[in-house]
Amino acid sequence: MIQFPQPGLEEFDRTYNIGTFDVNHDESRIAIATNLSGKFNVWGLDLPNTFPYALTHQDQLPSFVKFHPQDEFILVGFDKDGDENHQIYAISPNGGALVPVCTAEGKRVEFGALSKDGKRIYYSSDKDNQTFMNIYRHDIESGTETIVAEGTEGTIEFDALSPDESAFTYGKAFSNTHVITYLVQGEKETPLIPDVGTVQVTTSTRFVTPNTLVFLTNYQSPYSYLAKYDLTTGTYEKLFALEGRDIGRVQVNEQGLIVCVAEHGVEDELYLGSLESAKFNPIEFPGAVVFRTLLHNSGRLYAIFTQEDTPANLYRREQDGRWTKLSNIRVMGADKATLVRAETIRYPSFDGMEIESMLFRAKPEVTNGHTIILPHGGPQAADRKYFWSLSQFLVARGYSIFSPNYRGSTGYGSEFVKLVERDWGGAPREDIVVGIEYLIKNGLAAADKLFVLGGSFGGYMTLLLHGRHANYFRAAVDIFGPSNLFTFYNSVPEFWKPLMDAWVGNPERDKEKMTADSPITYLDGMTKPMLVIQGANDPRVVKAESDQIVEKLRGLGREVEYMVLEDEGHGFTKKENEQRVYRTVVEFLDRHLAR
Amino acid sequence: MIQFPQPGLEEFDRTYNIGTFDVNHDESRIAIATNLSGKFNVWGLDLPNTFPYALTHQDQLPSFVKFHPQDEFILVGFDKDGDENHQIYAISPNGGALVPVCTAEGKRVEFGALSKDGKRIYYSSDKDNQTFMNIYRHDIESGTETIVAEGTEGTIEFDALSPDESAFTYGKAFSNTHVITYLVQGEKETPLIPDVGTVQVTTSTRFVTPNTLVFLTNYQSPYSYLAKYDLTTGTYEKLFALEGRDIGRVQVNEQGLIVCVAEHGVEDELYLGSLESAKFNPIEFPGAVVFRTLLHNSGRLYAIFTQEDTPANLYRREQDGRWTKLSNIRVMGADKATLVRAETIRYPSFDGMEIESMLFRAKPEVTNGHTIILPHGGPQAADRKYFWSLSQFLVARGYSIFSPNYRGSTGYGSEFVKLVERDWGGAPREDIVVGIEYLIKNGLAAADKLFVLGGSFGGYMTLLLHGRHANYFRAAVDIFGPSNLFTFYNSVPEFWKPLMDAWVGNPERDKEKMTADSPITYLDGMTKPMLVIQGANDPRVVKAESDQIVEKLRGLGREVEYMVLEDEGHGFTKKENEQRVYRTVVEFLDRHLAR
Repeated sequence: MIQFPQPGLEEFDRTYNIGTFDVNHDESRIAIATNLSGKFNVWGLDLPNTFPYALTHQDQLPSFVKFHPQDEFILVGFDKDGDENHQIYAISPNGGALVPVCTAEGKRVEFGALSKDGKRIYYSSDKDNQTFMNIYRHDIESGTETIVAEGTEGTIEFDALSPDESAFTYGKAFSNTHVITYLVQGEKETPLIPDVGTVQVTTSTRFVTPNTLVFLTNYQSPYSYLAKYDLTTGTYEKLFALEGRDIGRVQVNEQGLIVCVAEHGVEDELYLGSLESAKFNPIEFPGAVVFRTLLHNSGRLYAIFTQEDTPANLYRREQDGRWTKLSNIRVMGADKATLVRAETIRYPSFDGMEIESMLFRAKPEVTNGHTIILPHGGPQAADRKYFWSLSQFLVARGYSIFSPNYRGSTGYGSEFVKLVERDWGGAPREDIVVGIEYLIKNGLAAADKLFVLGGSFGGYMTLLLHGRHANYFRAAVDIFGPSNLFTFYNSVPEFWKPLMDAWVGNPERDKEKMTADSPITYLDGMTKPMLVIQGANDPRVVKAESDQIVEKLRGLGREVEYMVLEDEGHGFTKKENEQRVYRTVVEFLDRHLAR
Repeated sequence: MIQFPQPGLEEFDRTYNIGTFDVNHDESRIAIATNLSGKFNVWGLDLPNTFPYALTHQDQLPSFVKFHPQDEFILVGFDKDGDENHQIYAISPNGGALVPVCTAEGKRVEFGALSKDGKRIYYSSDKDNQTFMNIYRHDIESGTETIVAEGTEGTIEFDALSPDESAFTYGKAFSNTHVITYLVQGEKETPLIPDVGTVQVTTSTRFVTPNTLVFLTNYQSPYSYLAKYDLTTGTYEKLFALEGRDIGRVQVNEQGLIVCVAEHGVEDELYLGSLESAKFNPIEFPGAVVFRTLLHNSGRLYAIFTQEDTPANLYRREQDGRWTKLSNIRVMGADKATLVRAETIRYPSFDGMEIESMLFRAKPEVTNGHTIILPHGGPQAADRKYFWSLSQFLVARGYSIFSPNYRGSTGYGSEFVKLVERDWGGAPREDIVVGIEYLIKNGLAAADKLFVLGGSFGGYMTLLLHGRHANYFRAAVDIFGPSNLFTFYNSVPEFWKPLMDAWVGNPERDKEKMTADSPITYLDGMTKPMLVIQGANDPRVVKAESDQIVEKLRGLGREVEYMVLEDEGHGFTKKENEQRVYRTVVEFLDRHLAR
């Protein structure tokens, strides 16, 4: 027998991604974002054939894709090298050059909806209202635009359009955990939940008919639930709730079918029901996490599923309930022996609060005995059972990985997610430290063989853990993490600023706390080798956040490797860059293994 | 309505290619060479899903791909950046790193067959016999090898293996129009056509049973036909012949089904029959030219078809005769208005001989009035109704293109193809000149608006036409064309050398003729601007062929642009290089348009 090597970085590198997608009116075509050619573009699939063909050559990550109702064109969104200033373009149904439709140079143009006749676009933009954004209606034929909602007090974003265009909804965010949704009917604006004084998240409105919509809210509930709103009476009622799970996402079709994704810690559940029956049945799906769903007017459900050991793929649910896989993203060279699933570990934190975490254990035949502590980004997000090429590669290489869903993570109810607000470096950090101690005490990790690695908030937490608990770690990898909450506060995108006081704190009011929670306060403690990675165009965590900590540490003579990607933002969207980053990370970690 | 631009180079650039493929034993998987990611690799399709996934990351053009009979591995062939020293590797059924199986550094290892049990490989190589090559049997488990045929007199190449491995065939080439095929049974070698003294081409043996094979030959016939050979009696008989068409390719399966491709000038015809019935019926297919066929033991036929306005795609023929398209290579942004089909023009040459040619006419709304004369490579090949991205782009840009199948082209019978031998620069050149005159006389081209462009022999002919008939042309583009038949004679691969005397001529015997037919003889005549393009690793037309003409012309103060591709050979296999070449060609032509 020919012996084949287990896959290495060369093979993991070729794991492609799929992202946003749309299905046309008669289900003959799917348009999907994928990086099959190394950079992202929109590709088409002419069903039943699923061999994809490129529809764009923009080589940027598409933010959305939307078919014209009669296939006259396809709308697509692109930014430039990660700057997040998305613009709306049209392409011919045959693909090709982008024709600008709604654009504003250097500003964000976020697609909202395309009218049912394909003639008008609704979008949100900061072009005239930097801080709170406005919502626009754009007539494609004439190019004329109208502001249909102006942002005040909180940042607004378009949510949904009624089928006859007589109404639409938008959300107004005061923080990630305080979002009020308004229904706009002509001049009239009505909050869906009339009690706007109570902190709540009301989002994801979906019109089923001109007079009925459903939405998600956690109003007066520890978990988000599905509610129904009657436009004729102006009243709402609870439609579907689950014990201990957030209904996190919802899609409807014109026939009143409803699909819900329930977020249950590190996993998702999928429910299918209808407005008429108000009954929701769980449906099985091939994966642990639902990335995206699309409920077609035909009644067929399209979705992207993933699992720790399975890259995200697009599926279609047939009439008999079976799922047909439409894409086929795989890890080159991998078999069942290569890829691992996570163990879910729940441990009590310093105050007894239960923290759920995932532990990817390197297999005995490959383990190097080291564990990487991996705090997730967000922070109001979660590490969940999805595939990540780098972590699977690191585990295949011998590293174990520990991902704790510290307080502030989503998927554990309305209160839990708030617990990171204005306490970035406090209890969430302690949750992780207790987690590390738990691993060591239970023989799940070796005390002298730990690394810490994280991106975004996870990068921030990496810096902070390094500064305050360096003794645990052999080395640290910070990927675009804020290093100084004061400069971070001032450098975020303008439309984030209304959220910052509630989220991070106020530099004057919370000066002491923000000092205590800023990694840069703990330069003295950062004694271990460090790798810092930053995208030059990152609008969320600007390059100055990485620059300043690197400069200061180098000034103190510390060992800091610094990698800046010129054509990336808050993430790595180009295969070549991703490969460079992964190589650098792996070589860095390998260099600091215990001998 | 949104107006979309017609596709330009940016869009044509994204037309991907597919090449060699194989289908596994139960038709659950196809492995196919494609450059979807910009460079060629082997990709897998898990039927019925046709979304491809990468099986290799070699980023080189695969020369073949072959499934193990029980899917234990996949054999693949790769060279290095066009050096044509193919090697045989195995990859895991999951893909990944290449495991060398039959390799010889700096030498050619050409896959022949894999035994039915998947344990032995038959291949041809020049590693021990530079000039005539040998054939080897390689045991995969033990790595032991045996020479099973030694080349003498002519270059030999493995052809087919009998199902029980009791026999195999190989071809011995004295020239492209003189190939004898031998049947090897133990120590015994028998020519399939006993009359080895007559010049003939006998090729493409296919075993149907251990005792029956079919093959193609033009023995005593103006066109190639299908014959059957009985190993028990040692006799052959004609099985299937067509008036005025060469049976150019044949495939069989274990049930005795036979598929034949008949080459009829610029088009192909497809015939399906069986050994038992000896009846062959024409079958319709979506295209004009058949690139490749595979007749599965299930009885299903897989094939790659193309047409002038349709890139090559892979199809499967269903039981009811319908073709299912399995790939979906398209021209981005193109609609029916973009791409053109050729007109077939037949004209009498200087001696009355009919020359078939194709004329791609730029549409009236885009035409720039210029025509590119495009002599094909080979020369014993033909320009046919297949898709070529560059020519379609040039036509969409306003150029018309004229491709004459000068004498020496294939598809016009056994005698016609010989007419270029030892007359490279004679009658074939005159055929083209008469073609140009025909165009002008009939108002199909403007006399002062002509270019000439060609690759390989077409590059040679470009140089020669430029040297001898410069008045016709505004400028010339030579892509890896031999410039000097004497140096060319000495620089071709060693195993070509036995063919050179019959093909090009003998430098001593034919000194005068080869001088007359060498472009470099006509430096004085080469007065028009020229672009020369060459792959640095080209083993067929070595870089020195381009170097010398460029140097000499520059020495004479002529305008010559020279582009060398460091990681290519006799063709452009990497999208990035192809794009650079196409841009350079288009800009060069555009610069020399009549104002």
